Amino acid sequence: MAQNVLPRTVQRLIDEFARLPGIGPKSASRLTFFLLRGQDNQALELAQALQDMREHTRFCSVCFNITEEDPCLICSDEERDPSLLCVVEEPLDVVAVERSRAYNGRYHVLHGAISPVEGIGPEDLKVAELVRRVQQGNFKEIILATNPTLEGESTALYLQRRLLNERVKITRLARGLPVGGDLEYTDEITLGRAMEGRQEL
Amino acid sequence: MAQNVLPRTVQRLIDEFARLPGIGPKSASRLTFFLLRGQDNQALELAQALQDMREHTRFCSVCFNITEEDPCLICSDEERDPSLLCVVEEPLDVVAVERSRAYNGRYHVLHGAISPVEGIGPEDLKVAELVRRVQQGNFKEIILATNPTLEGESTALYLQRRLLNERVKITRLARGLPVGGDLEYTDEITLGRAMEGRQEL
Repeated sequence: MAQNVLPRTVQRLIDEFARLPGIGPKSASRLTFFLLRGQDNQALELAQALQDMREHTRFCSVCFNITEEDPCLICSDEERDPSLLCVVEEPLDVVAVERSRAYNGRYHVLHGAISPVEGIGPEDLKVAELVRRVQQGNFKEIILATNPTLEGESTALYLQRRLLNERVKITRLARGLPVGGDLEYTDEITLGRAMEGRQEL
Repeated sequence: MAQNVLPRTVQRLIDEFARLPGIGPKSASRLTFFLLRGQDNQALELAQALQDMREHTRFCSVCFNITEEDPCLICSDEERDPSLLCVVEEPLDVVAVERSRAYNGRYHVLHGAISPVEGIGPEDLKVAELVRRVQQGNFKEIILATNPTLEGESTALYLQRRLLNERVKITRLARGLPVGGDLEYTDEITLGRAMEGRQEL
């Protein structure tokens, strides 16, 4: 009985929402009914935004960031330092680094991190493209800005080895106390790293 | 600088997701990049589901539930008891009651509850339609199944008064301990209601 209560198209939208990460069946229902009730065209606007994004975006053929033009705005920006390369896991990491306003070089997006548990190896990432880019380019420094997680650290270690023979400086983002953090509530590993990396004033 | 990093269409999809209830800017970014990365056509399938839902669903002209056909499957189901009417706030409440398998009558969806704080009065809900339906119909019992919240209770009280002159029994769902609940952790109001409503075994 309960199966037939919801119209087919409503159930399908709930199912589609529930496929998204972090959205369970309850949230999926709520989103669907929110859009059903909407007087305005919010559902159609969301549909249009989805289609436009799929149609107009692609990966930059140089750095593999998301872009509407190829090469992307960062890769084709002459004002940026072409000797610096920042390697990140995801396009959102590019946004994060840009927001810091502390970097003005180029990027390389790996599209993930090495994770034996999830069966993700270097061949699933843009690693070969990175190595080729470093060999052919004129970089002075490669900043391995993968996440400070197990997977990110392994990926950085792997990349470091792969790039060992290139005549280029390889760096990693500093680990330490987050700004605004509290010593008392800092986990022991972060605190240990902050101690090891202490700097003279 | 950071403003220009995201392609326009990507930013627009993030904005659209962030307009949905319970989805903040961070989740909106994550959903967008999840769909960007998707190898399959998940983004387009979601877009299609949204369009189909808007195109194919409407409100039942009798009970105001969401439906693809008018009148809806419940209103046109001859097997259901036409003398029972269950009044609920939202279409999702119909799903909840149906799931209980404890009811086999008709429904009336108010599309909200009276809330002076939010400026929602009876004229914003399907109240006039309910009164007309009760006057013209042959109902024996009207079950006021609005939520056990302040707004739901006020709405039930208001409806009870509006329907006072109709020759029809008006009931409200029982309040008491939730099945599987724990006396120790039950709030005092619920426990008070459970005590008042105690039944002889």
